[in-house]
Amino acid sequence: MKPIIKQQFSVTYRYDIHFTAGLFTPENPLLGRFFSERLEDAVPKLLVVLDEGVAKHHPILAERIHDYFRDKPAVDLIGEIMIVPGGELIKNSRENVDRIIEAVDRHGIDRHSYIMAIGGGAVLDAVGYASAIAHRGIRHIRVPTTVLAQNDSGMGVKNGINYSGKKNFVGTFSPPVAVFNDNLFLLTLNDRAWASGISEAVKVALIKDAAFFEWIEAHADRLRRRDSDVMDYLIFRCAELHLQHIAGADPFEFGSSRPLDFGHWSAHKLEQLSGFEVLHGEAVAIGIALDTVYSAITDRLHPGDAQRVLTLFQKLGLPIFHPLLEGNGTTHPLLTGLEEFREHLGGRLTIMLLQGIGRGVEVHELDKERVLRAAAALQEGVNLVS
Amino acid sequence: MKPIIKQQFSVTYRYDIHFTAGLFTPENPLLGRFFSERLEDAVPKLLVVLDEGVAKHHPILAERIHDYFRDKPAVDLIGEIMIVPGGELIKNSRENVDRIIEAVDRHGIDRHSYIMAIGGGAVLDAVGYASAIAHRGIRHIRVPTTVLAQNDSGMGVKNGINYSGKKNFVGTFSPPVAVFNDNLFLLTLNDRAWASGISEAVKVALIKDAAFFEWIEAHADRLRRRDSDVMDYLIFRCAELHLQHIAGADPFEFGSSRPLDFGHWSAHKLEQLSGFEVLHGEAVAIGIALDTVYSAITDRLHPGDAQRVLTLFQKLGLPIFHPLLEGNGTTHPLLTGLEEFREHLGGRLTIMLLQGIGRGVEVHELDKERVLRAAAALQEGVNLVS
Repeated sequence: MKPIIKQQFSVTYRYDIHFTAGLFTPENPLLGRFFSERLEDAVPKLLVVLDEGVAKHHPILAERIHDYFRDKPAVDLIGEIMIVPGGELIKNSRENVDRIIEAVDRHGIDRHSYIMAIGGGAVLDAVGYASAIAHRGIRHIRVPTTVLAQNDSGMGVKNGINYSGKKNFVGTFSPPVAVFNDNLFLLTLNDRAWASGISEAVKVALIKDAAFFEWIEAHADRLRRRDSDVMDYLIFRCAELHLQHIAGADPFEFGSSRPLDFGHWSAHKLEQLSGFEVLHGEAVAIGIALDTVYSAITDRLHPGDAQRVLTLFQKLGLPIFHPLLEGNGTTHPLLTGLEEFREHLGGRLTIMLLQGIGRGVEVHELDKERVLRAAAALQEGVNLVS
Repeated sequence: MKPIIKQQFSVTYRYDIHFTAGLFTPENPLLGRFFSERLEDAVPKLLVVLDEGVAKHHPILAERIHDYFRDKPAVDLIGEIMIVPGGELIKNSRENVDRIIEAVDRHGIDRHSYIMAIGGGAVLDAVGYASAIAHRGIRHIRVPTTVLAQNDSGMGVKNGINYSGKKNFVGTFSPPVAVFNDNLFLLTLNDRAWASGISEAVKVALIKDAAFFEWIEAHADRLRRRDSDVMDYLIFRCAELHLQHIAGADPFEFGSSRPLDFGHWSAHKLEQLSGFEVLHGEAVAIGIALDTVYSAITDRLHPGDAQRVLTLFQKLGLPIFHPLLEGNGTTHPLLTGLEEFREHLGGRLTIMLLQGIGRGVEVHELDKERVLRAAAALQEGVNLVS
């Protein structure tokens, strides 16, 4: 008897990210073509799950979806369009995941059928999770409706919901089969949601692409004034950088390195402390500001470059500090947050810092005293180059 | 703005299947070496989940596990060894999956930690599922304790639990990081459990390896008499064929072809109808017998070869028919089962039949009348070559 069998195989994933305007307008061929090109022997079913917030801003959307698919024989739209709560609410219980699984059962949706999620990042996360576990994976289509979801979370391969207050405690790595970014959804976002999505673009520019950072600097005013063309490019380039990163490194994060988490360790803590009153993108801006100033304090980054980052966030209308990150005398929320991040990642702590605009550098320890000093500098609004 | 980004990447999985006797005896170096070779920067935690049935047959196992890991500094065994119900029971509610996720939270088990499941296929399925979704995937080690789990289910990449009476309705594709097949666990199996695991070996031999089928024929008496050496080889070769199949084709079953489901469409129905009184391996023997006779009736397989299959099952002490598969006048359970299998797979119906010993052939339709004729022949014990 041989003592060992060595098993090895690879699984290849392919999906396209489409950029469009008016995905469900009758004359838009994208979705119709998507289904007709993929038609196999049996016509697949399609279950659409819609973010309540999107449904409110687009009251005739459900009707338009029905109209759109009426003359598309390559797919069988299920009559019931499910409406689910948007924002972190949907992720805080498994009730909505259960509702989707129950619908999969009731409608006889199989592994060759599709579940389409239309909404913000939280809805994509929860619906993506339900799609990933029902029948061990139903084909999942994402239609992200926020800046953040279109340039970042909707591009990626992760899904999940929260458990006992812990963000994304259960979930899977499970790529979608397609993503459709429709820029018309961005028109109805409020200013806070519009701006907050930009911080992930600043993040990926800072660790990977100095030219893109300079482009954002040059277009900050137009982004603030909600110029759609400028936002289109910002989303496209940010999505592209995210997708390249995922494909190039360790898509399912078997290792410890997670460069795209730049600025996120403190951001997660702040979101949680605020009961998700602080938006993810706002928390990320603050987290980036903190790690940028820390990079300067520890002589990795030129203070002038750090100041450029802070100035950019201010121009974009994004915060760089929040009072919830002040210490209360005993334990400091930032130090607690750092410990929680270490536990969440597992293995060796790995934190991304900056050694230049467009140049990230990984470290495995943060100096607590200097973390608090960086926070104090942000709180007091110190000018770094003075 | 470019209209499309094409994303593509591959994820590679590697895991070893070890064959051993007495995995937790102090002098067995396998597990100790496994953890020391994989040691990274931080010592990982290990949560052990144990099948209640195994714990009963091996009352000092938990203590031996504690003893084994006491002098292994490369891994930190969590003091609580979780005991979970065995058999289909564990899969019929999510209570035990929840217990494991709760333990992951309570013990601070992270993505670089390990969850080891020791038990039969159902326990591996449920624990594997919990491991796959907690933190989006904790490293999962399988220690299968039955013939069936050691040669088939424990080798594979699937996990899951049942939902509303439907087998494996929620689950994921998620390979383990290692499998340890310990043949000492087989000694305490009852005769039914011992024999029933052999049907999956007959299955894979019939569709892929005529020489292995002939070997099983030649060793049927010794298998019936519970010869350990013969069983060791049967398990090794069956596992090897399964693993080759998984690696070679479509590991996560994106397509419709599922050759390893030979004989399974009716087996699933029978298991369900019997409330899982009929063991999976017994149901598979009956399912194989049915599809073998159907292959002969439809002139794909020589009747003499079909008779060899039936004779082999009888020699092995495995059933080839069950009264629950008789029609009741209105709907026939086999026809219902065929329809349910079509729905479960999704897409185009694909059924494996035989065109020779060791040569499977896929078809996309079964003739209902001849399915019932094949069942009647088995029920009446017709000699196919007479």
